[in-house]
Amino acid sequence: MPRIKCIVSYDGTGFSGYQVQPGKRTVQGELERALEKLNKGRSIRVSASGRTDAGVHARGQVIHFDATLEIEPARWQIALNSLLPDDIAVLSVDIAKPDFHARFDAVGKEYRYFLLPSKHRDPFQRNYAYQFQYELDFDAMREAARLLTGKHDFTSFCSAKTEVEDRVRTLQEIDFSEENGLLVFRFIGDGFLYNMVRILVGTLLEVGTGRRPAESMPQLLNEKDRTLAGKTAPGHGLYLWKVFYEDEDHRFEN
Amino acid sequence: MPRIKCIVSYDGTGFSGYQVQPGKRTVQGELERALEKLNKGRSIRVSASGRTDAGVHARGQVIHFDATLEIEPARWQIALNSLLPDDIAVLSVDIAKPDFHARFDAVGKEYRYFLLPSKHRDPFQRNYAYQFQYELDFDAMREAARLLTGKHDFTSFCSAKTEVEDRVRTLQEIDFSEENGLLVFRFIGDGFLYNMVRILVGTLLEVGTGRRPAESMPQLLNEKDRTLAGKTAPGHGLYLWKVFYEDEDHRFEN
Repeated sequence: MPRIKCIVSYDGTGFSGYQVQPGKRTVQGELERALEKLNKGRSIRVSASGRTDAGVHARGQVIHFDATLEIEPARWQIALNSLLPDDIAVLSVDIAKPDFHARFDAVGKEYRYFLLPSKHRDPFQRNYAYQFQYELDFDAMREAARLLTGKHDFTSFCSAKTEVEDRVRTLQEIDFSEENGLLVFRFIGDGFLYNMVRILVGTLLEVGTGRRPAESMPQLLNEKDRTLAGKTAPGHGLYLWKVFYEDEDHRFEN
Repeated sequence: MPRIKCIVSYDGTGFSGYQVQPGKRTVQGELERALEKLNKGRSIRVSASGRTDAGVHARGQVIHFDATLEIEPARWQIALNSLLPDDIAVLSVDIAKPDFHARFDAVGKEYRYFLLPSKHRDPFQRNYAYQFQYELDFDAMREAARLLTGKHDFTSFCSAKTEVEDRVRTLQEIDFSEENGLLVFRFIGDGFLYNMVRILVGTLLEVGTGRRPAESMPQLLNEKDRTLAGKTAPGHGLYLWKVFYEDEDHRFEN
């Protein structure tokens, strides 16, 4: 039976994160429940490219599972979407190679972080962008971003709870843009540590408001001490945007 | 004590509509609760430009109330926003003339209706735009809109439950545009009957999909029979966008 790869989008607001936890509503839990229904009560384990925390959204999360039913990809999508709650949507379904792994085969990821630059809150953005009322110096932020880009040990930029020992990652790109009145911070890298994007955002905001010089980034990386970096920005501004795999058209350059 | 005019925005998703109902969470209920807290337990009645139904949103609802406290407008805004839940925001506060009335002084309104033109659902739009998967003929819809614009008896386009006897209204403008992948229907008129915008949208969609000829609009208006018009489009695509008053810069032309 084939291995199925899906691209999945979810509004993280109503979930206690991606990963299954007893008694909590999770994205993985809902996906596995839908597959179990399709599969007449037999459980199917879903693997994702990585977890997302409570409140964090996804536009392009990737999952895989082993099908026990022979269904065409287009019909998988219809069947899954009809069984999933409306805060999760399967955007595409493909038959993958038998050894495809959503997590281990990922060669890179794109995250985006959305800020609402306003003194006043917007009810329509309350779960989707972090309201930030202070002026930002984008020249300073771009300089800090330049110094953070590249291959570094990101120990200072991950949660103290991170269990992974190798914290060297390559950040290919950080950029800033404006979209419909929101500020968008874009991060592309070969991998991200626990809370890494949110700590990068928190630190860049401190640079942008003048509380931390852009030039301090190399030293901050060298110190390898989480307590020296900025605050962890709130989860509801964060989106897992895209996961890159080697065999795709949209090549991820390492 | 002064009469206060506020422009209020709310995400209608979590409300059983604008108007107070026993045991239900409503926008008016939350506004009056916040004012009561500010007012040390004395209740204050809030009047709005009109009601909105469950799930219907507002970007520019207008309310008024009589203040029993002397507070500057900017401080009213801060105080109210700090007491209101985060799905309601006060966007502006002004001291109004003593006889200003949010409903009776309104000379026009703008509503917008958002459609997600897609076969697949989008978790981020599920409460904010009506997913519509069929192709639309905008030439036909523009022709229907042209025939609906103007001064007409809109009995065919309001809920059978409408109690108002005079159903003559002037629709100044209906237009269609695209915004960030969504279709936006814009309606400007001197007043709108109960469910009028949603029935106009439902009828225009039937014209757009070829199930009803644009040329049938004059007859439909003449019949004065709600059962002959299109379905009432879902509430979650609808936004009360702006309320017009005579003494404002942005003049509403009757």
